[in-house]
Amino acid sequence: MISTDDASRIVMEQRLPLKTVDISLEEATSHILQEPLLADRDFPPFDRVTMDGIAYAFANLQEGGTLVVEDLQLAGEPQKTLQDTSHCLEVMTGAMLPNNTDTVSRYEDVEIWEEDGQKRARLLVMPEKQGQNIHTQGLDQRVGDLLLEPGVVLNPAAIAVAASIGKTQLQVSRLPGFGIISTGDELVEVGQLPQPYQIRRSNGYALQAALSGMGFPAVQYHFEDTRDAIRKGLQKALSQHDVLILSGGVSKGKKDYVPETLEELGVQKLFHQVKQRPGKPFWFGVNEEGKVVFALPGNPVSTFMCFHRYVKPWLDASMGKKDDRPVYAVLTEDVSFEPALTYFLQVEAHTDAKGVFRAHPYLGHGSGDFANLLRCNGFLELPPEKNTFRKGDAYPFIPF
Amino acid sequence: MISTDDASRIVMEQRLPLKTVDISLEEATSHILQEPLLADRDFPPFDRVTMDGIAYAFANLQEGGTLVVEDLQLAGEPQKTLQDTSHCLEVMTGAMLPNNTDTVSRYEDVEIWEEDGQKRARLLVMPEKQGQNIHTQGLDQRVGDLLLEPGVVLNPAAIAVAASIGKTQLQVSRLPGFGIISTGDELVEVGQLPQPYQIRRSNGYALQAALSGMGFPAVQYHFEDTRDAIRKGLQKALSQHDVLILSGGVSKGKKDYVPETLEELGVQKLFHQVKQRPGKPFWFGVNEEGKVVFALPGNPVSTFMCFHRYVKPWLDASMGKKDDRPVYAVLTEDVSFEPALTYFLQVEAHTDAKGVFRAHPYLGHGSGDFANLLRCNGFLELPPEKNTFRKGDAYPFIPF
Repeated sequence: MISTDDASRIVMEQRLPLKTVDISLEEATSHILQEPLLADRDFPPFDRVTMDGIAYAFANLQEGGTLVVEDLQLAGEPQKTLQDTSHCLEVMTGAMLPNNTDTVSRYEDVEIWEEDGQKRARLLVMPEKQGQNIHTQGLDQRVGDLLLEPGVVLNPAAIAVAASIGKTQLQVSRLPGFGIISTGDELVEVGQLPQPYQIRRSNGYALQAALSGMGFPAVQYHFEDTRDAIRKGLQKALSQHDVLILSGGVSKGKKDYVPETLEELGVQKLFHQVKQRPGKPFWFGVNEEGKVVFALPGNPVSTFMCFHRYVKPWLDASMGKKDDRPVYAVLTEDVSFEPALTYFLQVEAHTDAKGVFRAHPYLGHGSGDFANLLRCNGFLELPPEKNTFRKGDAYPFIPF
Repeated sequence: MISTDDASRIVMEQRLPLKTVDISLEEATSHILQEPLLADRDFPPFDRVTMDGIAYAFANLQEGGTLVVEDLQLAGEPQKTLQDTSHCLEVMTGAMLPNNTDTVSRYEDVEIWEEDGQKRARLLVMPEKQGQNIHTQGLDQRVGDLLLEPGVVLNPAAIAVAASIGKTQLQVSRLPGFGIISTGDELVEVGQLPQPYQIRRSNGYALQAALSGMGFPAVQYHFEDTRDAIRKGLQKALSQHDVLILSGGVSKGKKDYVPETLEELGVQKLFHQVKQRPGKPFWFGVNEEGKVVFALPGNPVSTFMCFHRYVKPWLDASMGKKDDRPVYAVLTEDVSFEPALTYFLQVEAHTDAKGVFRAHPYLGHGSGDFANLLRCNGFLELPPEKNTFRKGDAYPFIPF
């Protein structure tokens, strides 16, 4: 039996080789970028007017601030030039600042009227400073600057930046293919009416939902609890997917054929059993082709915890995602746990009005009580060295 | 000009009528449930063995704890009966507890051997208590109990619960159809090489990415800045979508035709201009058919902020989602902001090792500096009544 830290380390050493694929900008949201994105021009690419109003040369402003309006500079028009530098031009937000001007006053601060067929403007409020209401060329970024580096998640802001530099296609991490496998002869299909001694399958759906929420496609299988069915099923699944996630069949039961069958099929065991509750019987291995097998315990809370604590960070790392910093939450009450195991406490955590992230424990009735997960939004990871965990102390939080 | 609170309230009063649709369990992740889910049986539905080992009658245990093994009760088998109540049965995790037994000892605590053709077991560790290692019928939930109520997001745990009660189809909120519209003659397509006075479109992509991250389909349009193009385009978009999100064309510029054109087309203005920075020119309205129009300012940071501060909560409410509690983050340094406006400060926020959610400000260069959003993960909403905001104080956090 190994510690949770050792289990994490061994899992992380088996990350998948990073592969990339090009996808369209419209499909790229939530993918992991795998190319550097550089500014193709300055940001902004020209001295950009930020208010509708008038542009003029600050140094030439007269007492009283009255100016002849020469022309109008619209957004999307080539740059115009102020001919007489004691005059002004009307300018629109998003326009290039006209030549020979250096300051913009917004309409709210200007009166404009016609006189003798000539448009005139008077400043009601004198400018605060030369250069106001102009977003200067290159102020935000310079041409060639690194805007986004490989490993970032393409969130909406990143998509906007990619669009602005003309990326219709983006190189991102290729998503691995998942096979999700449940075993257990007590399990029947969701659409079936169970006998009194049967229950419906649910773990496979939880795993598929978790993967689909992260954008990963997965295929679900259920194998009968016979050596033969499990061997044939696993052999086929190994040939078809990059990663297998099993639930059930990894304990010491009569029909727990999963570990030995995986080894017979050439999947080398890297560990079996972790000093944790729930999830002790967790088995992990890889084969020579680099296919990775997470054989998780079949109790629903165990499957759920192992997925979020081990599979998800491994998947992020395999996708080349930049590390998330760990998150800590503060216990709202004392908790005791005697065994010398890492205890994954089910909690409902929330950031309060003082900005403190507080985790309220909901103990539930053990690793079979998956309805308890509905009240929670994560696990608090309580270390094995202690058995009393005090209200007010902070521990690592694993969200789900 | 109205306050952010008034703007929020007016937006929230115009939530869409809730409509529902049935979808398959496999597709239901992240949707909002719109039917109550009740337990169809007890959870667990029978006294369920939670460890591989032996089951026996606690009261009949003999000194020394040696028992004859009568039979084997597997998971997925009909319930067996212990014939001689001083004997035991081997039992597997997930099995029904056999008749006439009430306690389970796990294999780790038992020695099993064959003697005279008879399998026998001896307890190496006496049981801690009667009833151990049994997940009792109905302990977690009783038949008829409300497991999930309308308005919850179908996360993986909820999907597992829905599977376990046989829901192959789920009634969820119908997703409205979005039209995303940008205006601005300085904007060119992403695939195009801009002239020096042009920039590429990006706001529409940011909005589409934000909506797709929430699961909503959207169609993007770009209209030329002429009255005619905007009128024709808006008319068509209003007929085809439930919600329009515009960016640009709502200020005081010569070509800001959006507000008056919307009113001409029967979209009633509910407000125009909000006491906030960025995002002051925000326009909001509805037409008689209940089509809702968010006309957001075109500066990228303004568009982005208004979407996350107004559109997203409105959308959650329209989908019948249960309210999220507000989240607060703690400023890591003093910030000053003079104008009597609500200031949406760009921040990078993270929960530290003490469980405190800390927000580090990145001011950027105004509402055109959208590259600054790449360093941030939300806005801190700083109220207009103050102009100095102290390190250590907590303010509402709007994640993006």
